[in-house]
Amino acid sequence: MTNGPASDNAAVDPDEKPGRGVIDLLAMMAYAELVAFFRLADDAGLAPDLAAKGELAGVAATEYAHYKLLRDRLAELGVDPEAAMRPFVEPLNAWHTRTEPQSWLESLVKTYVSDGIAGDFYRYIADRTDDRTRALVAEVVSDTGRGEAIAVRIRAAVEDDPKLGGRLSLWARRLVGEALSQAQLVAAQRVELAALLTPQGGGREGEEPGGAGPSADLAAVSRVFAKLTEAHSARLEAMGLSG
Amino acid sequence: MTNGPASDNAAVDPDEKPGRGVIDLLAMMAYAELVAFFRLADDAGLAPDLAAKGELAGVAATEYAHYKLLRDRLAELGVDPEAAMRPFVEPLNAWHTRTEPQSWLESLVKTYVSDGIAGDFYRYIADRTDDRTRALVAEVVSDTGRGEAIAVRIRAAVEDDPKLGGRLSLWARRLVGEALSQAQLVAAQRVELAALLTPQGGGREGEEPGGAGPSADLAAVSRVFAKLTEAHSARLEAMGLSG
Repeated sequence: MTNGPASDNAAVDPDEKPGRGVIDLLAMMAYAELVAFFRLADDAGLAPDLAAKGELAGVAATEYAHYKLLRDRLAELGVDPEAAMRPFVEPLNAWHTRTEPQSWLESLVKTYVSDGIAGDFYRYIADRTDDRTRALVAEVVSDTGRGEAIAVRIRAAVEDDPKLGGRLSLWARRLVGEALSQAQLVAAQRVELAALLTPQGGGREGEEPGGAGPSADLAAVSRVFAKLTEAHSARLEAMGLSG
Repeated sequence: MTNGPASDNAAVDPDEKPGRGVIDLLAMMAYAELVAFFRLADDAGLAPDLAAKGELAGVAATEYAHYKLLRDRLAELGVDPEAAMRPFVEPLNAWHTRTEPQSWLESLVKTYVSDGIAGDFYRYIADRTDDRTRALVAEVVSDTGRGEAIAVRIRAAVEDDPKLGGRLSLWARRLVGEALSQAQLVAAQRVELAALLTPQGGGREGEEPGGAGPSADLAAVSRVFAKLTEAHSARLEAMGLSG
């Protein structure tokens, strides 16, 4: 449930104001939800019909609700939410700009892949924080069956038109590649956040744990990313795509 | 609470399936909310900062919630919601295309003016329908203080820069002109809906009321529009603009 005794530099006492790593996590998620709201709304032009447009708006509205939860929590912690979000604006915008869907199916794959991998990532970090943060993150990333619905739809489309499979597999690969690339930049810049990704919140196996403050061990970060990519492969399979 | 005895052609028995006019009203509102959602989200690029973007997303998310209420009601009435919305897609899209804001203040004025005039319009029609429809419309158009907040902001901006006043007044005039123009097209095409706009649901003072089915008396429709324009003037004043 909580971190080991060696993780004091990253763990948070429930009665204490969380550290910079947790603020970063909440702020990154808040901006990710806000920008996802606008980007999803932007995909309306790709929706095949009015019903699909309505569903899309519903997904976007849920992203807004998540943003609101996270932003309110930041404000409650006495943090200026917008200032806290600012470091994540550029990498998240860059990711979206580099992965703009050109078709409705690409938009659906993007939603499924990015919700999945981001959800795993957030949960992984949140497990290294306090109960309150963990509960909030769990609420925000809870899968409401939307992923499964998308996977079924993509699988059906690929079965109807096998050529699509290759194209969408490449698309999914690019989505993850671009995400990991931006995540690496963020990890390099946000030391306290990256420290939450490493075993025992900053140490590394075989090293003296809980040393001189948080460590942005980029090799450990990469190992976490490798683990996230494995879960991603299962999602690809669910969509009938290959890795 | 209900219409006069002469209005049977437009009024709806609470236990009966509402007529075409009510279906049209709900469908028009549903599509108006859905398209407003996407158009508002589209204005994100105009927002001056992250906090304003977040507020914008919040307003759009509320539009989605309204859309959902209306769409669910249409489905509950056994109507295909998308088919019912279809006649309103073109005029509402045309209105948005012809009134695309070029600045953040124009976006705010558009929200205030269109929420205001559409709200008055919907309430006016809904008063001529059944209790259930009236309650749903009241819920959807309820002003949550957002209009007042926008008016205060616009007034302050105009006081700071009086040149803005002239420009935004012209903008507000264009918004209403384009809205009335599209509304006239809708009234001409949707006879049952237009009939709800005329006194006693189809008759005209001095005429034999409740004659041969619903009447799309365009002069009566124009008188309703004239009344709506009066309320619009009060909103202009609240923003420090002139008509």
